[in-house]
Amino acid sequence: MTDDRDQGLTFNPKYDADGLLTAVVTDAEQGDVLMVAHMNAQALALTVGTGFAHFWSRSRQALWKKGESSGHMLEVRDIRIDCDQDAVWVKAVPAGPTCHTGARSCFYRRVGIEGLSPVDAAD
Amino acid sequence: MTDDRDQGLTFNPKYDADGLLTAVVTDAEQGDVLMVAHMNAQALALTVGTGFAHFWSRSRQALWKKGESSGHMLEVRDIRIDCDQDAVWVKAVPAGPTCHTGARSCFYRRVGIEGLSPVDAAD
Repeated sequence: MTDDRDQGLTFNPKYDADGLLTAVVTDAEQGDVLMVAHMNAQALALTVGTGFAHFWSRSRQALWKKGESSGHMLEVRDIRIDCDQDAVWVKAVPAGPTCHTGARSCFYRRVGIEGLSPVDAAD
Repeated sequence: MTDDRDQGLTFNPKYDADGLLTAVVTDAEQGDVLMVAHMNAQALALTVGTGFAHFWSRSRQALWKKGESSGHMLEVRDIRIDCDQDAVWVKAVPAGPTCHTGARSCFYRRVGIEGLSPVDAAD
C-alpha cells in the first residue's frame, strides 16, 4: 500500500481532476485550524516562494493571495504534504481574522447530534 | 458575501459533486494535523453518532471506519464545520499511528524550495 510517492522525498503532488490540492491552514502559534481551501501548482509555488499563503479560488476561478484585499495575510512558518501528496498543511501566522465572516477561524460552529452550535472563542 | 449557510446554526452541508466534504483530523491533545480525508453524509452521521471517525474512501468507493482493520481508531472529541459548510474539522484521540505508512501523522514531510525533507518527530 506504499510507493515512492508515499515514502520518498520526491515532490510529486497528486492534483485532482481540476489540478488542485487540498490546503489546511493552522495557526502556527495557537494550533487551531483556521481554514481549508485549495491550491493549484502556481498557488503552491507562490506560497513556498513568497512565504505568504496563496490559493486557487474555485468560485472565482482565479489565483488568490489570502489577504490581498482584507490585509489579513497568512505568513507561512511551515508547509507539509501528506502521504499520498494530495493535501498540504500550512502553519501560518495570521495578520487578522482568517474567515470572510470576520471570525478568527472559519470553524466557529460545532457539529453535534442536535445540529450546529456556536463555539466559544476560548474553546 | 455571507448568507444563512455561513452565519446561521442550520446544518446544511455543501457536498461536492461526489457527495463529499473534506475532513481534517487533528490530535485533540497534541494539536497537529493527523490526516485529511473525505466524508459523505453517512460517514459524518456515523462519526457524530458513534464518536469514532468514519470516512468515505474514494479509491475503494466504500464507507470506512478508521482503524477497522488496523485497530488505530480515532476517538472523536470535537467536530466543527467551516463557514461554507464544505469542510469539517475533527479533533480526535488516535489509538495508534494514523497514517497507513506507520507514521503518527500523514504529514511527515516538509515542502521547501528545494523539495521535500523529512520532518523530525519532535517538530
